[in-house]
Amino acid sequence: MSASKKFTTAVSSIRIIPLRGLPEVVPGDKLVRLLVAATRRQRVRVGQGDIFIITHKIVSKAEGRIVPLDSIKPSRQAARWAGKYNKDPRLIELVLREASGIVLMKRGVIVAETHHGFVCANAGVDVSNSPDGTAVLLPKDPDRSARKLHDGLTRAFGVRVGIVISDTFGRPWREGLVNVALGAAGSASLLDYRGKTDASGKMLNATLIAVADELASAAELVMGKFERVPAAIVRGYAADGAFQSGADLIRPREKDLFR
Amino acid sequence: MSASKKFTTAVSSIRIIPLRGLPEVVPGDKLVRLLVAATRRQRVRVGQGDIFIITHKIVSKAEGRIVPLDSIKPSRQAARWAGKYNKDPRLIELVLREASGIVLMKRGVIVAETHHGFVCANAGVDVSNSPDGTAVLLPKDPDRSARKLHDGLTRAFGVRVGIVISDTFGRPWREGLVNVALGAAGSASLLDYRGKTDASGKMLNATLIAVADELASAAELVMGKFERVPAAIVRGYAADGAFQSGADLIRPREKDLFR
Repeated sequence: MSASKKFTTAVSSIRIIPLRGLPEVVPGDKLVRLLVAATRRQRVRVGQGDIFIITHKIVSKAEGRIVPLDSIKPSRQAARWAGKYNKDPRLIELVLREASGIVLMKRGVIVAETHHGFVCANAGVDVSNSPDGTAVLLPKDPDRSARKLHDGLTRAFGVRVGIVISDTFGRPWREGLVNVALGAAGSASLLDYRGKTDASGKMLNATLIAVADELASAAELVMGKFERVPAAIVRGYAADGAFQSGADLIRPREKDLFR
Repeated sequence: MSASKKFTTAVSSIRIIPLRGLPEVVPGDKLVRLLVAATRRQRVRVGQGDIFIITHKIVSKAEGRIVPLDSIKPSRQAARWAGKYNKDPRLIELVLREASGIVLMKRGVIVAETHHGFVCANAGVDVSNSPDGTAVLLPKDPDRSARKLHDGLTRAFGVRVGIVISDTFGRPWREGLVNVALGAAGSASLLDYRGKTDASGKMLNATLIAVADELASAAELVMGKFERVPAAIVRGYAADGAFQSGADLIRPREKDLFR
């Protein structure tokens, strides 16, 4: 533990505060206004360094990333695959359009790389918590969305806040989904401990910690999946660093041993 | 959101409290006693349902899962691979012994399946925060370790507490490590939302949430990597369910699309 002095973050306890009672978000809604109203209703006094974790679903909806399935004409490939696995061909078509590449199509599951570079189920296309007959796509540029929210909320509250835009992803080898970060602004997304140890001749660990993913996971604990809690505030966590975007959390293809 | 009534968890805000100042743990140490002492020093009054997130490193050390590298005679295979990538052959030998199978050996990285079924780097063998000349292995049975800590701490505090034993794992496709759960007791590890939606003809999501992994990730935010904070308490999160073990978080091989 001789390296313990080299990297100190002054963390005492952290609080995770759910933001409840946001209305159903529709295209064109001003999320900054809705989030500010939610904090007021709950009498949450937002402080410097508070981090807003916001599920991408409401960001996508506000940005109009909802697609009526009636508007989608499935390609032959989509129709064939949908037929084989008893899926909606229009949804499969949307998945294929949102994908820049297919990682795996197997037993009715599509794991795809999105145009942003995320590898996830159905290229992020989702019908849960989406109005009937529609599907919600991922935000076009989650980091840009995060920066806009960062700017807007920082202005509204008069204190600098961090933003993480989240989604739930599955993982190979492990059961269950966890919340991860798609976009981030104003708060560290990765902490870099490399070179901080005095290891000599030791097997070195890769010691980048994906703290924005951990923040997203922490927030999911108060969000649940079927309650109307699309956002949470993490208070008491401060970490700076060179990496502050969701894009930093995407492993470059040339470094990825699994592609 | 018509399903919102069907699954309600009464979550208000959650607190994550770091437990500091534990001594360097050595084989034979009574972790229950050390953890109780840490809460007393910090004047943390442990309450019903508090969840202790404990890094596996101190569990392994207390259980004697530390190996002096001098005691290891590398096999020919270990020596060959270590030579090729400039690694310590004794460490590679340990990795091979801890592995039940190799998922990937590439560019100096070993991703292996452990005898428990975890898929992770170096089969969990680690030299960071380990005395010089030694390596720390994963606990032999993290769920059993968790149950023992659950029983001991519940007795000591007189209130029922949950336990998650954690480690940091890498992920394919994403940068950085996150904390995940190896073992658990007395608290949900997976929440099962399947069948809770009224989806009709919709593309169904896999809606198992790996809450023990999310609890571990949340705790990592106060643990950091190089501070002596090997445990944290998560307060205000209560979730019951059928799945309460770390083993539940291991995707069975026959369900795994990536093996």
